[in-house]
Amino acid sequence: MQMAMHASAQVVGNAFVEQYYHILHQSPELVYKFYQDSSVLSRPESDGTMTSVSTMDAINRKIQALEYKNYKAEIKTADVQESYKGGVIVLVTGCLTGKDNVRRKFSQTFFLAPQKKGYFVLNDVFRYVEESEPLETTSTSVNGVIDSAPTAPLASEPEIAPISRALCWLHRSVSKFW
Amino acid sequence: MQMAMHASAQVVGNAFVEQYYHILHQSPELVYKFYQDSSVLSRPESDGTMTSVSTMDAINRKIQALEYKNYKAEIKTADVQESYKGGVIVLVTGCLTGKDNVRRKFSQTFFLAPQKKGYFVLNDVFRYVEESEPLETTSTSVNGVIDSAPTAPLASEPEIAPISRALCWLHRSVSKFW
Repeated sequence: MQMAMHASAQVVGNAFVEQYYHILHQSPELVYKFYQDSSVLSRPESDGTMTSVSTMDAINRKIQALEYKNYKAEIKTADVQESYKGGVIVLVTGCLTGKDNVRRKFSQTFFLAPQKKGYFVLNDVFRYVEESEPLETTSTSVNGVIDSAPTAPLASEPEIAPISRALCWLHRSVSKFW
Repeated sequence: MQMAMHASAQVVGNAFVEQYYHILHQSPELVYKFYQDSSVLSRPESDGTMTSVSTMDAINRKIQALEYKNYKAEIKTADVQESYKGGVIVLVTGCLTGKDNVRRKFSQTFFLAPQKKGYFVLNDVFRYVEESEPLETTSTSVNGVIDSAPTAPLASEPEIAPISRALCWLHRSVSKFW
């Protein structure tokens, strides 16, 4: 079945993307207003580890520190889906160009949660999609950790490991997997 | 404030990524079981337009048609955040290599919604992050449309357009933006 998506999620997502990147680069000191104290924002450090912050105040400080005024964003794609309990999910791909004219591809995911008037950004995850670095099948890793939490190695075709009943993904016939 | 993330979202997200890509390439005929009838799956067509499908049956047919057995996935990063009302959001970046040995970078976003036993994939958005195509500032577009719905042009630094009160993103001082 092809999906007839609720029009408003599309409208909300596209309007958000337009507003967000405009304000991010024109008035980064105001971007924190897209968020609430319950929001989480994740940004990679220069060594690739991910830092996550919460609260509007910490998010504001993180965004200011990243000096987006020095970058220009080119948005390539913005794909929107309706999500859980009235939320909207957006996957953006594009490029950030710094003052050094180096252009780096990125992908960014937002979860827009409904609130009394409109929506706020509950989740914001940003990753550069590196150009030059060769991807080694044997050395990939999951970097979705908070700061210095240990990273779990993840093979490209991982073995199925025993996993708790609570993570029972395959809700039917699950027993054949673990 | 640095965020102390609830450990289980991280565990859930990482376990999901391991399982999902393993089964996607080893047993693609079973992958639909990660989804429910309310799930939405979006995949780009060869011309870059996005197709979205819903229901387990349609998702199964779409996944089968994509012939993932002919591809090898290398997962580069998997970043996880707790999300709305017990959900978990995951942004994956990596590469798919086909039988032609062409390696294409991708990013993929999942929203894992809680259910009685564990979670299911409510949202799944996949995009290739193209290597060769130059990104033109003047010709970027939002491709988050369902099938043949019209695409809205989006400049890299868009003008702020009037927008309905319902999309009141900046919940304070909003009047200064529109």
